[in-house]
Amino acid sequence: MADLDSVLGCLDLNLDRSVERLKDLLRIPSISTDPAYAAECRRCAEWLKEDLAAIGFSARVAESAGHPMVVAHHGGAGENAPHVLFYGHYDVQPVDPLELWETAPFEPQIATRPDGTRRILGRGSADDKGQLMTFVEACRAYIAETGSLPCRVTIFLEGEEESGSPSLLPFMDAHKDELSADIALVCDTNMWDAETPAIATSLRGLVGEEVVIRCADKDLHSGYFGGAAANPIHILAAILAGLHDADGRVTLPGFYDGVEELPDEVRAIWKGLDFSEAEFLGQVGLAAPAGEKGRSVLEQTWSRPTAEVNGIQGGYTGKGFKTVIAAEASAKVSFRLVGRQDPAKIRAAFRRFVTERLPADARVEFHEHGGSPSIELPFESPELQAARAALSAEWPKPAVMIGMGGSIPVVGEFQRRLGMGSLLIGFGLGDDRIHSPNEKYEMTSFAKGQRSWARVLEALGRQRA
Amino acid sequence: MADLDSVLGCLDLNLDRSVERLKDLLRIPSISTDPAYAAECRRCAEWLKEDLAAIGFSARVAESAGHPMVVAHHGGAGENAPHVLFYGHYDVQPVDPLELWETAPFEPQIATRPDGTRRILGRGSADDKGQLMTFVEACRAYIAETGSLPCRVTIFLEGEEESGSPSLLPFMDAHKDELSADIALVCDTNMWDAETPAIATSLRGLVGEEVVIRCADKDLHSGYFGGAAANPIHILAAILAGLHDADGRVTLPGFYDGVEELPDEVRAIWKGLDFSEAEFLGQVGLAAPAGEKGRSVLEQTWSRPTAEVNGIQGGYTGKGFKTVIAAEASAKVSFRLVGRQDPAKIRAAFRRFVTERLPADARVEFHEHGGSPSIELPFESPELQAARAALSAEWPKPAVMIGMGGSIPVVGEFQRRLGMGSLLIGFGLGDDRIHSPNEKYEMTSFAKGQRSWARVLEALGRQRA
Repeated sequence: MADLDSVLGCLDLNLDRSVERLKDLLRIPSISTDPAYAAECRRCAEWLKEDLAAIGFSARVAESAGHPMVVAHHGGAGENAPHVLFYGHYDVQPVDPLELWETAPFEPQIATRPDGTRRILGRGSADDKGQLMTFVEACRAYIAETGSLPCRVTIFLEGEEESGSPSLLPFMDAHKDELSADIALVCDTNMWDAETPAIATSLRGLVGEEVVIRCADKDLHSGYFGGAAANPIHILAAILAGLHDADGRVTLPGFYDGVEELPDEVRAIWKGLDFSEAEFLGQVGLAAPAGEKGRSVLEQTWSRPTAEVNGIQGGYTGKGFKTVIAAEASAKVSFRLVGRQDPAKIRAAFRRFVTERLPADARVEFHEHGGSPSIELPFESPELQAARAALSAEWPKPAVMIGMGGSIPVVGEFQRRLGMGSLLIGFGLGDDRIHSPNEKYEMTSFAKGQRSWARVLEALGRQRA
Repeated sequence: MADLDSVLGCLDLNLDRSVERLKDLLRIPSISTDPAYAAECRRCAEWLKEDLAAIGFSARVAESAGHPMVVAHHGGAGENAPHVLFYGHYDVQPVDPLELWETAPFEPQIATRPDGTRRILGRGSADDKGQLMTFVEACRAYIAETGSLPCRVTIFLEGEEESGSPSLLPFMDAHKDELSADIALVCDTNMWDAETPAIATSLRGLVGEEVVIRCADKDLHSGYFGGAAANPIHILAAILAGLHDADGRVTLPGFYDGVEELPDEVRAIWKGLDFSEAEFLGQVGLAAPAGEKGRSVLEQTWSRPTAEVNGIQGGYTGKGFKTVIAAEASAKVSFRLVGRQDPAKIRAAFRRFVTERLPADARVEFHEHGGSPSIELPFESPELQAARAALSAEWPKPAVMIGMGGSIPVVGEFQRRLGMGSLLIGFGLGDDRIHSPNEKYEMTSFAKGQRSWARVLEALGRQRA
């Protein structure tokens, strides 16, 4: 363990420098969903390639049909060492509504609380630049202190995770050998709480759809046409309102096919977690679970499927008032999937649901925004046990195994396309405001996250040594 | 009639010059609802004041709490001549979506069709700058040819008609004596068809409301919170969807209080109109009447009340996709009123309807955007008969008396506050695309509209001479 101790010491000594590096990375506005930021996405990939090359990886920016990938390799302790693939993403969410940010989203700052704890402010600080840099910093220190890494390491960073990863699967298929490893390490998840690390063993899947309803061929004056002309906002509102029944269940025919009740074993583990529904909702200003009746909040967010309207737009939405009947209205709708729910079937059921409810004079157009099934990872693999012990050594409380409400589609594709399992280990916290204004990452997450990865790499290296 | 003939001849001779003046006026982007255009609204008022002063009116730009008014007086044939108040508005609607305009909205152009007919293109060409200039040009020619006007004339132009006229009533109350006349002339309505002038004798009222629903205190990630957190878009959609029943009737309790069936006399007149539902809807790409079942389209748009959502917004509406649960969602909703429906009661009923349907964790905020009752004008006044004969002399077909689906709140206020009736005479056509991209005004409307006002002024002046 002498090596590990010196690596951990090196990380502690160089924390300030690692923060400066992260701030440099956060200054690049790599918003993948908005084509206006394409050059910034590329600049971000170049930055990462340069940094990885500087610490001894053979790194490159690899073209895809969309934003480029970063792929980097390090031979580590040699051919017999276990081979891990680290996955992260360098792209970030849009920043609107900008007026709600207390600091400029791409001018990262360190803020100190009265109790001395610090946080890193800025878009991407938690999701996912801060998280991915915990791994890069662990590698940097390991190589600096020992001249190598305890595992063979491939680092694979994409730039389209926040926009449905359209180029990911073709790229994985085209670079199958290069990306295959013994296990994938994915750092895009949360701790259980600030003292308790977590390994996620289930993730919900996702189907993203955009629906556009059109009626008249132009915007109409509601005085001349109101009462006679079809209003696409009314039609859309009625259809969306019909997606849930009074008990909060989703009404799409066949929606719950493949959804099963929690196994007793999992239910027992979740019950043992120190979780307060009131605190979870209270942190965002809510008090009452709003979803499926008769389910706990952990069930609602980890093991039950959902339908959510993520955006809606139609007619005049500027200041003041305009008595218009819009020509079109649109919504972005996503479904979180669990168990064996089939993304293609859910998408088809939604489209049928909408189409069947269209009145005369209404036409519909759909746009697909990604789809992936849910993931369940084995509880008892030796890698998971090794990582669990490594994390428990670093943090005040032992690591727990949890479910996840979010979707990390790449995990399923690693399994399906590259035949490898994943360890989902992340150091985010529930109040990091990812996807929202004022995103932050705790300094403790960043510092102890680096130390955690050093420990996990050491533990995985030991398994096959 | 020698005077009138020379005035008409003068108008014909000077048409090109009057078109240039209108184009100058149309170049000013006087969008009243957007504060960014406040200086342009003022510039527009100044332009009109200068033009009216140039033809012999004592004109001024009068301050109000919002955009300024234009008030101008001409003594006409002296104290014994009838006194008319001409009302129009110089402000225009916003131009979004800009990409649907075939010509720049504030760079007016004259376009000629293969058959030689011409139209004036640009925002405000029909609503209401082109219309109000028909009256100004008639006055210009009358004064040029005869040295005076056959009536005493006050011209009153506001700059907030498209944004709910917030300053109009205080201004009318403060300038009651100055604005009172024997009758008001309002030029903001349509012809029956391109050959048939119309005088509107009923107008629907209007209630405008904006509703904002808030749940969490920030935008949430739909993975972490989806299924447990209240989604304001769902809540808003369900409430809006509940505003109509399956027969297209509005469900607000008490909504139809004061709504009566059409008198047989009016029904007979409307039945006699040459009106094709298929053509009316077909011109905007629709085929089926979408409103209250069992009602004709004329009833739906002239004599029945409506609820329309004019705009809706919430969550992520940019390009791509964002799996967010929004903190808030909002809609702009308007009600068209008929008969004795009370705007205050309708507004209160709507607010109650929304508030009663809010689930836990949802809060609501309302913003008022104007309200006015419906108007019914007497069929048989001498002024109406005189105007009807004057219009019938100008156009290929005799003038008809019609209802109107739109709201011109000022007409009710003229009656209530200043004790005067109105004549609603306009030269717009149903395909003018007011409030929409590619607004136009027919050259025939502009030319024969000027001639019509000369005839109407002459006929009204004769009544008391």
